[in-house]
Amino acid sequence: MSLTTDPATQTTQPAPDPDRVASIKEMSRNHVFTSWSAQGGLDQLPLAGGEGAHFWDFEGNRYLDLTSQLVNVNIGYQHPKLVAAIQQAAGELATIAPGFDSQSRADAARMISERAPEGMSKVFFTNSGAEAVENAIRLARLHTGRHKLLAAYRSYHGATHGAISLTGEARRLGSEPSIPGVVHFWGPYLYRSSFHATTEQEESERALEHLRQTVQFEGPDRIAAIILESVVGSNGILVPPPGYLEGVRALCDEHGIMLIADEVMAGFARTGQWFAIQNWDVRPDLITFAKGVNSGYIPLGGVVISDEIAETFTERPYPGGLTYSGHALACASAVASMQIMEDEGILEHVRDLGERVIGPGLQALTEHSVVGDVRGLGMFWALELVSDKETREPLGAAEMAKIGRACKDAGVWPLIMANRIHVVPPCVITEDEAKQAIEVIGNALAGLT
Amino acid sequence: MSLTTDPATQTTQPAPDPDRVASIKEMSRNHVFTSWSAQGGLDQLPLAGGEGAHFWDFEGNRYLDLTSQLVNVNIGYQHPKLVAAIQQAAGELATIAPGFDSQSRADAARMISERAPEGMSKVFFTNSGAEAVENAIRLARLHTGRHKLLAAYRSYHGATHGAISLTGEARRLGSEPSIPGVVHFWGPYLYRSSFHATTEQEESERALEHLRQTVQFEGPDRIAAIILESVVGSNGILVPPPGYLEGVRALCDEHGIMLIADEVMAGFARTGQWFAIQNWDVRPDLITFAKGVNSGYIPLGGVVISDEIAETFTERPYPGGLTYSGHALACASAVASMQIMEDEGILEHVRDLGERVIGPGLQALTEHSVVGDVRGLGMFWALELVSDKETREPLGAAEMAKIGRACKDAGVWPLIMANRIHVVPPCVITEDEAKQAIEVIGNALAGLT
Ligand SMILES: Cc1ncc(COP(=O)(O)O)c(C=O)c1O
Ligand SMILES: Cc1ncc(COP(=O)(O)O)c(C=O)c1O
Repeated sequence: MSLTTDPATQTTQPAPDPDRVASIKEMSRNHVFTSWSAQGGLDQLPLAGGEGAHFWDFEGNRYLDLTSQLVNVNIGYQHPKLVAAIQQAAGELATIAPGFDSQSRADAARMISERAPEGMSKVFFTNSGAEAVENAIRLARLHTGRHKLLAAYRSYHGATHGAISLTGEARRLGSEPSIPGVVHFWGPYLYRSSFHATTEQEESERALEHLRQTVQFEGPDRIAAIILESVVGSNGILVPPPGYLEGVRALCDEHGIMLIADEVMAGFARTGQWFAIQNWDVRPDLITFAKGVNSGYIPLGGVVISDEIAETFTERPYPGGLTYSGHALACASAVASMQIMEDEGILEHVRDLGERVIGPGLQALTEHSVVGDVRGLGMFWALELVSDKETREPLGAAEMAKIGRACKDAGVWPLIMANRIHVVPPCVITEDEAKQAIEVIGNALAGLT
Repeated sequence: MSLTTDPATQTTQPAPDPDRVASIKEMSRNHVFTSWSAQGGLDQLPLAGGEGAHFWDFEGNRYLDLTSQLVNVNIGYQHPKLVAAIQQAAGELATIAPGFDSQSRADAARMISERAPEGMSKVFFTNSGAEAVENAIRLARLHTGRHKLLAAYRSYHGATHGAISLTGEARRLGSEPSIPGVVHFWGPYLYRSSFHATTEQEESERALEHLRQTVQFEGPDRIAAIILESVVGSNGILVPPPGYLEGVRALCDEHGIMLIADEVMAGFARTGQWFAIQNWDVRPDLITFAKGVNSGYIPLGGVVISDEIAETFTERPYPGGLTYSGHALACASAVASMQIMEDEGILEHVRDLGERVIGPGLQALTEHSVVGDVRGLGMFWALELVSDKETREPLGAAEMAKIGRACKDAGVWPLIMANRIHVVPPCVITEDEAKQAIEVIGNALAGLT
C-alpha cells in the first residue's frame, strides 16, 4: 500500500487558524476529562507541532520549551530519526503480546540493561511510570517475603493505587485509604531542613539517622523496600547531598531491604547519565523508568531488575503482567531513542551545558531578591522563589503567575510548580537557547518589582 | 527529512532465518522479564509480521490467529489504513501533555462518547485497561463519597494494586493484601451454577438475589460501585443471562451505587457493538475500555464517564492523572481505528459471522464427547471441555495441550485457558477463515480419542 500523505516530520508551522483553535478547545471541554483538574473553566493551549526544544500552536506562536511537556520529551520534539524509526516499525508489526518473543522487545531490554548498573540484566516493561512502580512494589514484596514499604515525603510515584500510596504529597490524599503497609519518612532538603541542619553534610547525616530510626521502629525485618527518587523531581528537584544515597544503600544492605530508585523523571539523559543513580556509586535493586526512555513518543515504562530478584522468579511464576508489556512499537522507539542519544552525544551535551551554562546561569539569578535557592544538575533544575530571603516565605501565587506570563510573552514556556520554576528543557536545547531562556527568566524576575 | 526505508506495511513474509530466531530467543531469555511467568525455561515464538487474521514467524510459518494476541487486535494485523494513520500522526506531533489541548485527543474523546450510551459525554484517557479500572474506582468513590467496591469472582480487571484487588481469580493472590474495601460476589454461570440453578432464568434471578443480599449485608450506603465485565472475558466468556444486567442496574439505582462496566476486553466490535453493554438495555455509570479501541497498535485505554459523575468534578479538582493521558499518537490511532471499523462495516460483520457461522459452527462441536458447553456472541466465544459430560469434570492439562498442538500443526493458533478454548479471532476474520478454524478445532477434538 502507499501512503496518501507524506509521513515525514512536519517542521513547518501552520498558518494561524483561530477557527481550528476554537473548535479544538470546545471539543476538548465537551468530551475530554482532564488529569488533576477541575473540569469547569479549563483553558488550555492546543499544540500543533514542534522541533528540537520548540513547540508551536495554531495561532502563529512558537515557544522555547522549558517543560519537556511533563519532563518527558528529553530527545526534543519530533526528532526526525525517532519519527522515522516509529514509522518504519509501525509498518512491520505494531503489537506483539508478551507470550510471543519480539525483536524490538529483546533489543530494548538488552540495551537498557547494558546501560544500567552492573548486575541488573532484566527488564520488565510497562506502559507508564505508575505501572513500573506497581510492579517494583510487587517484585520487592515477593522477593523479600515482607510487606512494608518506606517512601519519602516530597515524592511523586504515580496515580494508580499502589503508586499513589507511596506518593509523599497532597496528590495522594484524594485516593486514600492507601494500600496497607506504607510508611513515609523525610528525605534531605537542606533549604527547608526537617532536621535543623545547616550544611549539606549535616543534612545528609541527620536524614540518614532519621531513616535509620524509622526503619528500627517499623521493624527492619518487615520492610520489603525503601523507594526514593534518585533526584526528587516534581517536588522540587532535590539533589541528594553527598553520602545520602550511599547511606541508604548501606542501611538496606544491613537489613535485607530492597532499594527502589524511581527514575521515571530522572532517567535517560535528564541528569546527564542513563540513570541518575549513576551520578553516585550506588546500585539499587530495582529501577523504575518511563518518560525519557523514548521521550514518550509512544507510552512506555518499566523496571530494571537486579539479578538476585530476577532469580527468585526462575521457578516461581511472577504474578503480574499487562497486555502491552514489551509492546513492539514502543520498544522499537526506545531502541531508536537510545541509539540517537548515543550517536548525538546527548548525555555529554547535558553534562556540559548543565555545568557550564545552565547551572552558572541560574545561580547568577540569586542576585534577584526573590530567588531563595537554585539547585539541580544536567537539565534538571529548580529555582525556589521566596518573598523574603530571611524567613524563606514562599513567593505567592499571584507573583508566580506574573512570572509565568512574562516568560510566555517573551516566547519561553516555563514550568511553574508552587513557588518554584523548574527548568527542565528538552535535553537537546542548544547553548544559545539555554542562554535565551535564562535571560528571559531573569527579565521576568526583574519585572516583579 | 526523507525516510531511509519504505514505511508502508510489510505484507510479505520473511524467508526462514533460524539464526535470527535463535538470537531473539536468547536475548529475550537473558534480558526480558515476562508477564505472569516463571522466567526459567520459557520458550516463546518470535513473531515477524501479520496481515488480517494471520500472523507469521521467522521460520516460514503462517498461522490463522484465534487469539487476537491478548484479545486486542480486533481490527486485524497491520491494517494498512491504520498503519498509515499512525505513520502520518507520528510525523505531526507524537506526544502532548494533558495540560495542553490536542486535536486527536479531542476527536477521539468525541467519537468514543458518541458511540457510548446516551449521557456519557466525557472520556478520561489512560494507557491500559488496568489504569482505566484504577481511575474508575477513584471516580466512583469520590462521586459517591463511599469506599466499598463489589466485584465478581471469575473476573480479571488488571494487575495494578487497585485493579488486581478487584480481580476475582487466582491471579489476585500474589498481590495481596488488597486495597481496603473490596468485597467479592458470585456472578451468573449456568454451566457451573453457584446457585444450583438449572435454567438461564433461574440463574439470573438467583444471582441477583445473591447480589442483593450481599449489598444488604455490606451496607448499601457504604458501597461506591459494583464492577463487572459486561461479558466476562478471561474467566470463560460468560454471557450474562437475560435480565441480569438490568437487575444489577436496578439494584444500583435503588441504593445510589455506581455501575462500572469493564469493557477492556468486550468493547469495540468484539461482541458486534461498540460497547458490549449495548447488547442490553442498560446504561452503566462508568465504562472502562482499552484493547479494541485502537487494537493495541499504540497503548491506550480509558474511562467513559456519565454526565452525573463528570459534573462532580466541575469545581472540585479530580485528584488523578498520568503523564500520557490522552496521548496524541495513541488518540490519533483510535480515531483512525473507529473510522475504519465504521467504513468497513466491521461491527456488522462481527454480528453476522457470529450468528450465522461461528456460533452455529461451534455449537455443532458439542457432538464431540469432550465439549461440555459452548457460549459466546459476536467474535467472543469459548468451548468448555470436560472429561465427562455427566460430572462436568474439567478436561486435563495434557489433553488441552494436545488440542493446542494439533491446531498449531494445522496452521491455526488457538487460545487455551484452563479447560477452555477461547475463540476470539481478529474481528476481520473472513467466513472461509472462520470455517477453516472451526474445522481445525473439530479435527483436534476428534484426534483426542
Ligand atoms: C518519579 C516519578 N514516578 C512515577 C511517575 C508516574 O509516571 P506516569 O505518569 O507515567 O504514570 C512520575 C510522573 O511524573 C514521576 O515523576
Ligand atoms: C476485562 C479486563 N479488564 C482489565 C484488563 C487489564 O488490561 P491491561 O492488561 O491493559 O492492563 C483486562 C486485560 O485482559 C481485561 O480483560
